[in-house]
Amino acid sequence: MDISKLAERLAEAGQSHVLQFWDQLNPEDQAEISVDLESMNFMEINSFFKTAMKTSGQSSQEKVDTRMEPVPREHLGSVTRDRESLKEWEEEGLRCISENKVAVLLLAGGQGTRLGVSYPKGMYDVGLPSHKTLFQIQAERIQKLEQLAEKQHSRKCCIPWYIMTSGRTMDMTKNFFKRHNYFGLKEENVFFFQQGMLPAVDFNGKIILEGKGKLAMAPDGNGGLYRALGTQNIVKDMETRGISYIHVYCVDNILVKVADPAFIGFCTLKGADCGAKVVEKTNPTEAVGVVCKVDGLYQVVEYSEITLATAQKRSTDGRLMFNAGNIANHFFTLTFLKEIVRTHEPQLQHHVAQKKIPYVNTQGQLIKPDKPNGIKMEKFVFDIFQFAKNFMVYEVLREDEFSPLKNADSQDGKDNPTTARHALMSLHHRWILNAGGHFVDENGTRIPAIPRHGPAGTVTPEVSQNLKDGTDLPIKCEISPLVSYGGEGLEHLVNGQAFQSTLVIDEKGVHELVKNGL
Amino acid sequence: MDISKLAERLAEAGQSHVLQFWDQLNPEDQAEISVDLESMNFMEINSFFKTAMKTSGQSSQEKVDTRMEPVPREHLGSVTRDRESLKEWEEEGLRCISENKVAVLLLAGGQGTRLGVSYPKGMYDVGLPSHKTLFQIQAERIQKLEQLAEKQHSRKCCIPWYIMTSGRTMDMTKNFFKRHNYFGLKEENVFFFQQGMLPAVDFNGKIILEGKGKLAMAPDGNGGLYRALGTQNIVKDMETRGISYIHVYCVDNILVKVADPAFIGFCTLKGADCGAKVVEKTNPTEAVGVVCKVDGLYQVVEYSEITLATAQKRSTDGRLMFNAGNIANHFFTLTFLKEIVRTHEPQLQHHVAQKKIPYVNTQGQLIKPDKPNGIKMEKFVFDIFQFAKNFMVYEVLREDEFSPLKNADSQDGKDNPTTARHALMSLHHRWILNAGGHFVDENGTRIPAIPRHGPAGTVTPEVSQNLKDGTDLPIKCEISPLVSYGGEGLEHLVNGQAFQSTLVIDEKGVHELVKNGL
Repeated sequence: MDISKLAERLAEAGQSHVLQFWDQLNPEDQAEISVDLESMNFMEINSFFKTAMKTSGQSSQEKVDTRMEPVPREHLGSVTRDRESLKEWEEEGLRCISENKVAVLLLAGGQGTRLGVSYPKGMYDVGLPSHKTLFQIQAERIQKLEQLAEKQHSRKCCIPWYIMTSGRTMDMTKNFFKRHNYFGLKEENVFFFQQGMLPAVDFNGKIILEGKGKLAMAPDGNGGLYRALGTQNIVKDMETRGISYIHVYCVDNILVKVADPAFIGFCTLKGADCGAKVVEKTNPTEAVGVVCKVDGLYQVVEYSEITLATAQKRSTDGRLMFNAGNIANHFFTLTFLKEIVRTHEPQLQHHVAQKKIPYVNTQGQLIKPDKPNGIKMEKFVFDIFQFAKNFMVYEVLREDEFSPLKNADSQDGKDNPTTARHALMSLHHRWILNAGGHFVDENGTRIPAIPRHGPAGTVTPEVSQNLKDGTDLPIKCEISPLVSYGGEGLEHLVNGQAFQSTLVIDEKGVHELVKNGL
Repeated sequence: MDISKLAERLAEAGQSHVLQFWDQLNPEDQAEISVDLESMNFMEINSFFKTAMKTSGQSSQEKVDTRMEPVPREHLGSVTRDRESLKEWEEEGLRCISENKVAVLLLAGGQGTRLGVSYPKGMYDVGLPSHKTLFQIQAERIQKLEQLAEKQHSRKCCIPWYIMTSGRTMDMTKNFFKRHNYFGLKEENVFFFQQGMLPAVDFNGKIILEGKGKLAMAPDGNGGLYRALGTQNIVKDMETRGISYIHVYCVDNILVKVADPAFIGFCTLKGADCGAKVVEKTNPTEAVGVVCKVDGLYQVVEYSEITLATAQKRSTDGRLMFNAGNIANHFFTLTFLKEIVRTHEPQLQHHVAQKKIPYVNTQGQLIKPDKPNGIKMEKFVFDIFQFAKNFMVYEVLREDEFSPLKNADSQDGKDNPTTARHALMSLHHRWILNAGGHFVDENGTRIPAIPRHGPAGTVTPEVSQNLKDGTDLPIKCEISPLVSYGGEGLEHLVNGQAFQSTLVIDEKGVHELVKNGL
């Protein structure tokens, strides 16, 4: 194998060390690393590193704090404070969908590492009665929304679904969808594309080897989206299809309202080119980034960049001043996205994440460092907010719309399969109650609306002891997205009726599953 | 032993069955059960049962919902919405304390059953660096508050502490305080008294035997306070001491601001005879009782009594309409308490809690029922709100003032020793930051104000990845109540300084404890 050309490019970029074990590699490993290297632009990587390090050094905490302003009320829509407009927004969104103007774009490049699995998160089954995966739940929500729009406007429509994977998850994701017949969607309306990868580098910008013949590679952050949109002709495809509005979201939120018509309608009616769905941050030290203005431009300020003094500032209404908690759930017009891809993306700088990265030393031994020894370079999906001409924020209720899956169940009890499952079943329990149904226990006694063991983070004071025994909850109940997208259309199925858990409502009907075949 | 008199009383009350195993008991057991029985008024117990069952049948869910009204703004003080008044309230409270007008009353009758210990909860050590128990923390807060009031008003003062135990916890509690020299308080200012006990009864009102010679007894609820205040001459003692205002709270809240001057000042300046400290309920299905008006009178409506439709109602400001979450933390004037003890307490009816109560059947075998077989009768401390002539509600921040200890660590990750310890350390971390100090990691790098692993219930979105490794928190930090009651007086100790955890600040100074003697 002739690697002289590659070696020359590496030498020019000061990265020759990545081939230091070349002669010890077998031909297969030589082939693999050279394929990886061939596709890389080392000069570009070096310049990414330089710019990223310069920027990361500059922005000191104090500076950001003094430059932050909260989202003005005119740029905020709220499901709790603008209830009178909700119906109008939702109808407008459904109209856009019925006109085939809306696409959804899923950020699914991450692997389930923290979750303890080696496959993409979207393939995870959190243990619902139906055992549906996150991908299936989202696919069925899209399908239902198409049906609702079609019914309302008496015309066929389609919401194309663009799924961004990474090099590591592409094949598994594609095969999973194929194997499950795209969960009822048409194959031609589901697109897979791939975000870029970048090597991790040490603090001098040298590419890190995680094996003698293996580079330490990582996806380039969910903001890799914008580069991929251009390089893989996604924007062009959207244009051909006549798409005007794109809903972007992250795979790990089990409650996500994919292509939420109210959010889309709100943004379009307000003439937004870019929008962010948020949940209220209520505790100053909650680890969530907040949407705000910095030097007059919208951005997300990460919780690690903010001082406590700023985090605990309050408005006269008693709420935290910076309370627009970012949940990676955004609206873009296609016009805006095109502008981003064409003009702004190349100027975006990478963020620096210091990491402990296992590496081989010059003796070829694998070392697991106990403090950070290098960086990953990432762009974030919200990096482009600053370019919006009319940015809008849309506040929704956490218990209705946000429950991310991040950790395995053994970890500290939050954002794990159990909390995700409970959040979904609790929401569906509320749908049943709001539609006039209710639950009874095995003795036929009505179970109160508020279960004794509520969702994580709730309190059960000493004084609340006068509850009947036997209601250890949440109530097991699951409603297929094919039956209801957001709680609608359940009255005729449940009104006035008493159910015992486990209750499953799907396209085949209403089922009460009693445990162990009793 | 002659029990004919007792047997006669039992027969009259239809409770003869409690002596059915009399002849099989050894003399010691005979003595024990007869002592228990001698002190009981069976006719009264029967009438409690009758009334309680009648009331519990009456109040249907629908009825309460339609009669509920939220707390009017004029009856609400809020630390977030009335910040301009906080200082005035606090000064007024300190003035009352300095004039020896304030007493605190601790509800500590419960055992740590759910916590998995056989001793009173107040003796629990949640694992702080100092290993202080809940009792010690509270005692030291009282001491510090006395000092603050003395300093401000240049006169000696004292906050007497009345501690309500139950028959089961009295001796252990008293001995614990004695052994620890009342944690620096004067013995004559700490009073122990005992709430009553009541037998559990079956659904026909028959007293349940949990052994052949043992009655199933339970404390009569934290509302047993009012009866005990009279029978044990507590009200009289308060009167003798010139007490005007009483702060009542529950032992299990590690963050409790004992005799909180701001709360007391708010209540006295508003002319309240009765007040409740609350935290905002933000999720409709949170399992917390809410303070509200029913038929024009204040009361706590339990979460099990409320329909979802009511729980999810919102005011125009977007907040839940019924959001005054009760945390068993109350203010009373002595005049009001005297009126309660004299006039209203005897009329209060018991609440009924259906329970699974282990019992011996007529063959003398111990049976553990798998569904409720009887009831406990309890009064609640908030049952007397309805008698207030000027009731006030005082809203505080949960993260600053409420973290109850209820469960063992193995249970579902909430309200346990870990969450209590973290809540206290997180609060003290914020005190350090607000006083101008900060923390650094082992490499000297400043640790951000918001730790990656925040308190339970917080989120860490996918997008928030640009945090340095190594900040697995909360930061270990504890400030003795003898140094600061509520965050005050720390500037001269920490301003401009960098600390490494574990940080302990106590009356001896500022200590950085590094693990394993490094």
